[in-house]
Amino acid sequence: MNKPWQDKLRQIEPYVPGEQPKVADIVKLNANENPYPPSPRVMEILHKFDAARLRKYPDANAGCLRTALAKYFGLEGSQIFMGNGSDDVLALCFQAFFCSEKPIFFPDLTYSFYPVWCSLFRVPYETIPLDENYRIHPSDYVRENGGVVLPNPNAPTGIGEGLDFIRQMLDANPDAVVIIDEAYIDFGGISAVPLLKEYENLVIVQTMSKSRSLAGLRVGYALASPALIATLEAVKNSYNSYTMDMVTLEAAAAAVEDDTYFQQTCSKIIETRTRTTETLRKLGFTVLDSQANFVLASHPVMAAKAIFEALKAQGVFVRYFSLPRVDNHLRITIGTDAEMDKLFAALQKIL
Amino acid sequence: MNKPWQDKLRQIEPYVPGEQPKVADIVKLNANENPYPPSPRVMEILHKFDAARLRKYPDANAGCLRTALAKYFGLEGSQIFMGNGSDDVLALCFQAFFCSEKPIFFPDLTYSFYPVWCSLFRVPYETIPLDENYRIHPSDYVRENGGVVLPNPNAPTGIGEGLDFIRQMLDANPDAVVIIDEAYIDFGGISAVPLLKEYENLVIVQTMSKSRSLAGLRVGYALASPALIATLEAVKNSYNSYTMDMVTLEAAAAAVEDDTYFQQTCSKIIETRTRTTETLRKLGFTVLDSQANFVLASHPVMAAKAIFEALKAQGVFVRYFSLPRVDNHLRITIGTDAEMDKLFAALQKIL
Repeated sequence: MNKPWQDKLRQIEPYVPGEQPKVADIVKLNANENPYPPSPRVMEILHKFDAARLRKYPDANAGCLRTALAKYFGLEGSQIFMGNGSDDVLALCFQAFFCSEKPIFFPDLTYSFYPVWCSLFRVPYETIPLDENYRIHPSDYVRENGGVVLPNPNAPTGIGEGLDFIRQMLDANPDAVVIIDEAYIDFGGISAVPLLKEYENLVIVQTMSKSRSLAGLRVGYALASPALIATLEAVKNSYNSYTMDMVTLEAAAAAVEDDTYFQQTCSKIIETRTRTTETLRKLGFTVLDSQANFVLASHPVMAAKAIFEALKAQGVFVRYFSLPRVDNHLRITIGTDAEMDKLFAALQKIL
Repeated sequence: MNKPWQDKLRQIEPYVPGEQPKVADIVKLNANENPYPPSPRVMEILHKFDAARLRKYPDANAGCLRTALAKYFGLEGSQIFMGNGSDDVLALCFQAFFCSEKPIFFPDLTYSFYPVWCSLFRVPYETIPLDENYRIHPSDYVRENGGVVLPNPNAPTGIGEGLDFIRQMLDANPDAVVIIDEAYIDFGGISAVPLLKEYENLVIVQTMSKSRSLAGLRVGYALASPALIATLEAVKNSYNSYTMDMVTLEAAAAAVEDDTYFQQTCSKIIETRTRTTETLRKLGFTVLDSQANFVLASHPVMAAKAIFEALKAQGVFVRYFSLPRVDNHLRITIGTDAEMDKLFAALQKIL
């Protein structure tokens, strides 16, 4: 029986983060992490950092990172909001922008956190099915709603859409905020950043966890009109004024400034993705064309779950979702060429 | 006139974080920062950190810091929750524990964030006046409520209470969660940690921003029964699974392990506080007896706001609140002895 104080607690289903195996010597292709280290400038920042500075509060305005991102994107500082990973930024966006009684819309197959935030912040929502080719149609989003959120490229499909698509989505929804979650945009996708000039209700969210190799540091950001950014800042400052620590701010700024390294590593991942898609297809897999740092693949004969378990037994971790429509698929992160070779060898043994 | 999408935004008053002057050569006694650097082990962690590791997600379970805190407090790992500064931890506590229709109680004069979180999360609240000596009385909290939160020592008074007081507060409130915010406990206060064995509805929140000199890194934690910690983890995992970055986790763990350094710096601050209280009294100030790393002082002749402005003109920043009951007081952080000497010299000129 509950004690009286327990009745006042939040009734909530525990959300379990994805598996992060701690064994050494595994091939880890299950969390969409970047196989390459971050820019060498990140190491420099850490190694020359004067720890005595940590006794003071960081810059709540995240000045150095704001400046670096503004320069990189050609935006004003007032168009940028930074947070503790893109999950933090998206969670704050849900609280800041989805405050009507109408349901927000997102695809039935997409980032699994969206319904979790809706439940946490009591935002009504409706999911809209992808078509049989796993595509999103803007025409399905032309109905009254409380807002729209969708990733481009989508996850776990990896399918990316162009500016015409985003423009159609925005034109269909002038009365609500449209969030484009560009977590995977830097691997060949087409960013909606140029549309910020035209649409005041557009919010673009990106992360440094994938293309910048900084999952371990927790940095995400939103790009939008100054009016939307101001609302986001107000919500954040009512929650926790100092979310980003000094070391992270400076390391992330240094990573943004190193564009050459960034372009190189993104290109390598795109090349390896092409090779991975081709090799998997030769092995008999059906593979969706991906613009992200992962591919979604299924095998016509062997069940995805069985392949997943067999790969795990060989020390190769990929991601399996027991979800409708993708429960016979594997999401495979693009690692180094050497890591993918280990995957291919393991698959040849299994199949 | 609002555009339609603006009607769906959160209506919120921007909360403005305290002033953080960026001028060099000032004496900064306005943010309760520690005048001493963190443990030298923090610098070691930064300087030997292999940045290549940052490409992976951090441990969502915050293992190394959990272990260090469990050992330090003699608690189980399941009794500890960690977050991005104690503001993050407290905000999650408000969401997790204050979910009834009844108002929560806290003092009228206390940490200014409590009403802000109530407003953000729509938690009803009632403030209970301190007595004429700025003291809290547990007997004022013996009424049906949705929860209780109070700092010990209280801020901005600096007044600390003992275990009997906390026990009275808990005995008066068996039907709700009682949060004791121990942000300033390490400067001579009496922690409620021993009471965790007896009270399943007790939550203690502490921060590494003050006594551990790590404001710049953002680390806070809650100590409570496994049942409460599990609820807190569930809310946090529904918000952002990876709030704490790798560098911060390891640096904070190293700081906790260095108890000798910690005891030394806390003792120095306590000594300087005694000297500061005495000197301010000699200068004619009324100073409350503080158990925190700041003192609350008022002058019988010169108005606090005038002293605040005059000090600022001389490069000495203290904190002034234009709030009822303390609008003729200054909150002065305890710095090094040399910093306090500069304050005294400036005050002698001014008065």
